[in-house]
Parts: sequence; C-alpha cells; structure tokens
Amino acid sequence: MRFDIITVLPSLLESPFAHSILQRAQKKGLAEIHVHNLRDYANNKHKSVDDYPYGGGSGMVMQIEPFALCIEKLQSERTYDDIIFMTPDGVTLNQQIANDLSTKENFIILCGHYKGIDQRIRDIYVTKEISIGDYVLSGGELPAAVLVDAVVRLIPGVLSDETSALSDSFQDGLLDAPIYTRPAEWRGHRVPDVLLSGDEAKINAWRDEQQLLRTKERRPDLLKD
Amino acid sequence: MRFDIITVLPSLLESPFAHSILQRAQKKGLAEIHVHNLRDYANNKHKSVDDYPYGGGSGMVMQIEPFALCIEKLQSERTYDDIIFMTPDGVTLNQQIANDLSTKENFIILCGHYKGIDQRIRDIYVTKEISIGDYVLSGGELPAAVLVDAVVRLIPGVLSDETSALSDSFQDGLLDAPIYTRPAEWRGHRVPDVLLSGDEAKINAWRDEQQLLRTKERRPDLLKD
Repeated sequence: MRFDIITVLPSLLESPFAHSILQRAQKKGLAEIHVHNLRDYANNKHKSVDDYPYGGGSGMVMQIEPFALCIEKLQSERTYDDIIFMTPDGVTLNQQIANDLSTKENFIILCGHYKGIDQRIRDIYVTKEISIGDYVLSGGELPAAVLVDAVVRLIPGVLSDETSALSDSFQDGLLDAPIYTRPAEWRGHRVPDVLLSGDEAKINAWRDEQQLLRTKERRPDLLKD
Repeated sequence: MRFDIITVLPSLLESPFAHSILQRAQKKGLAEIHVHNLRDYANNKHKSVDDYPYGGGSGMVMQIEPFALCIEKLQSERTYDDIIFMTPDGVTLNQQIANDLSTKENFIILCGHYKGIDQRIRDIYVTKEISIGDYVLSGGELPAAVLVDAVVRLIPGVLSDETSALSDSFQDGLLDAPIYTRPAEWRGHRVPDVLLSGDEAKINAWRDEQQLLRTKERRPDLLKD
C-alpha cells in the first residue's frame, strides 16, 4: 500500500510516521508513505500557494495549480485507487471505511490548510472526501495521519498479533470490555474476581456482558442497526 | 491554557506541536504543551509499563502505577480542570466540546497504547473520556494532538484573524460554502460568476444558499436540531 500526501507542512508529519505501527509497517515493506511539499509545485518565486478568496471574506484559499501539478506528476507514475481530500464536510470516517480502504493499493491524500482549497480541485481531482469528525482543525495534516494510521494497522502482518485488530472496539459493532493487568490489588482497588478465576467460559460470558452493557450505556446508537 | 500529555511515545508528538497554529500559540504564551514520558514513572529497571491482561486475550495492558505516579506529581503542582483519556469508547468529540474546553485552563491527557489501559486508571483518575471518532488507531497520541489542535485554535488571539474560527464549518451548525481563488479560469473551469460580481448582498445570499444546500446534501443530520 502506498500513500502520497500533499501538504504545505511536510515537517509536521515527520514524527507521526516515524514511530510505532507506521514505522513498523514501512520497515516491513507493507506500507510506503511519501510526503510531498506543495510549495515545490508553486510557479512563483515566493513559493506561495494561496491567495485571497473570490467574493471577499477572511482567510486564504489554496490555489488549484500547485495541487494539479503535483497530482498529475504522481498520476503519471502509477495508478491511484483514490484521491482523498481531508475536510470537515466530507464523509465521516468510521471503521467500515477504514476496512474498505485497507483492501486497496495506492492513495493520494490532499491536506488543506488556511481557509481551505479552491473548489475546482475538489470538483476535478478528488474522488473521496473524508472527515475524521465534526470539529475544525488547523489543517488536514493530523487528519491525514489519523487516516493512514487507521488503515495501515489493518493491513495483514502489520500488527504483531493479528487477532488484536479483530478484537478492537467497533470491529464487532460493540465497545470493548474493561481490561485489567497486574497488580490484582492496588491501594484497595481490586480487579474483578471473575478475571482471576481462570474459568474461561465465565470470563468470556462476563466480557460479552460488559461489552453489551458499556455499549448500551455509552453508545446506544451502535446497537440500533 | 496548559496541556500535560502522558504517553509512552513522546517523540511521536514532537513535530505536530512544533508547527503551525500550535507553535504560534506556544510562542505567544497562549498555550503550554508538555509531553511526559510514561516510562519515567516505571518502577522497574526495564522501564516497562505494560503487562498481560487478566483473564487472557491478546495485546498488552498499560499498568496503573506509572500513570498514577505521573498524574499525582502533576496534581501536586497545580489544579487541573480535567483529566482526559483518549479512547474510542469515550464521548465523541465535536465542535461544542472543543468550544467548552477552550474556556478552561489546565488539562492532563492520557494516551493509551497497545490493547488499552487498566480500567482502574479510568475509574480513579479520569474525569472525561473523549473519542475523536468511530475508528481504532494505534494509540492515543494522534487523538491527543487532534484534541489539542481543535481546542487551542479557539483561544482568543491564537488565530491571526479571529473571524476565521467563527466562520468555520460547524460553528453555525452548517457546512462551509465552496471557496475559490485566482485564477478566475483554469483550463476552462471558471469560478461562479456571482463571486466575481462585486455585489456583496448577492454574494452573501449565494453563500448562505450554498451552505444550506451542501449541508442538506452531505449532512442532513446537522439540520435536524
């Protein structure tokens, strides 16, 4: 799987992609992540890529040409399954979307910044608009990192223990049960007895019950479907 | 405003906090962001902070003691409005929650990793559990960065143009209208005439209409309330 991320702040993405799961996936050759500096595609000597919005209003708008040139260069090198724009008015990311994307091969991700990007980039090039949630951020860089993380960890072989991704919250439509580790008692706070019982059937029944209970309490909307 | 973030991967958070809005907010003295290495609070020579889950199952669980020691050290130094745990089964972050948090002062943010954290940390210390969306990530680090970004940009004086945050998507319950910048025509794709008309009343009417249209098309759920 390959991600080409286009941004005005490539250095913002350095550390998230250099650690943990994403680092491991790249070292194993299971994922390639390339970050492109949009300013390299600016055709003016100040390397500016934004301008004032037509019709007035606050904030700067990212121009069409630099994105177009970068996208077209990448498209001349390989075929992309999707050109994704991270935006709060896109389709809200969920585990199902992450699962679907994890079966594909090549993605370009566009990160907006400032007030946003020229609508024509979205109309002409973008095939998927994804939001990571109903809140506004400074740019599309953190959302891009979130999307890549959510997808890459689902590629077979990336997580050391494959069952780990399958038992995550949302994969079976329920939230996780509470988990505990040593010590069994800490300042008077004890781990539930059932987890220390060694009785696998009882433990599984307790976990199922807790999953259902927690989902009912916290996210009844997940039980509706 | 001050954020103390507790994580096993402090270096993952280096670049997101060193750029753009978050860097500017720190330079202006409007936000302090401190990242603490959980392993500094491990009481064993291997600096391990996790152990196997009670009752069996895959993945490792983060232990209570290191979090407790770090939290209690911070609490001895100042008062915190909230101790927030980033978790997919928390309350889903939205703009209203970000607005509320932006009026407060001090936060501790706990980042889970591996399979999760010992439930007793949540029961004893955590005052708010926040999810950035219905998907699973490798750890709480990117969600912590997302939360900090969403909140810090709302602090008065952080954004260069204050109206910019107010006209964002969600702040008025609607998605943004399409935006455009120069050139007015690019490879035959033209900016809508109204935006070039110079008629402010017509432009505002068009934008209102587009906001409503886009929200109806993409997020009818936002119009229900």
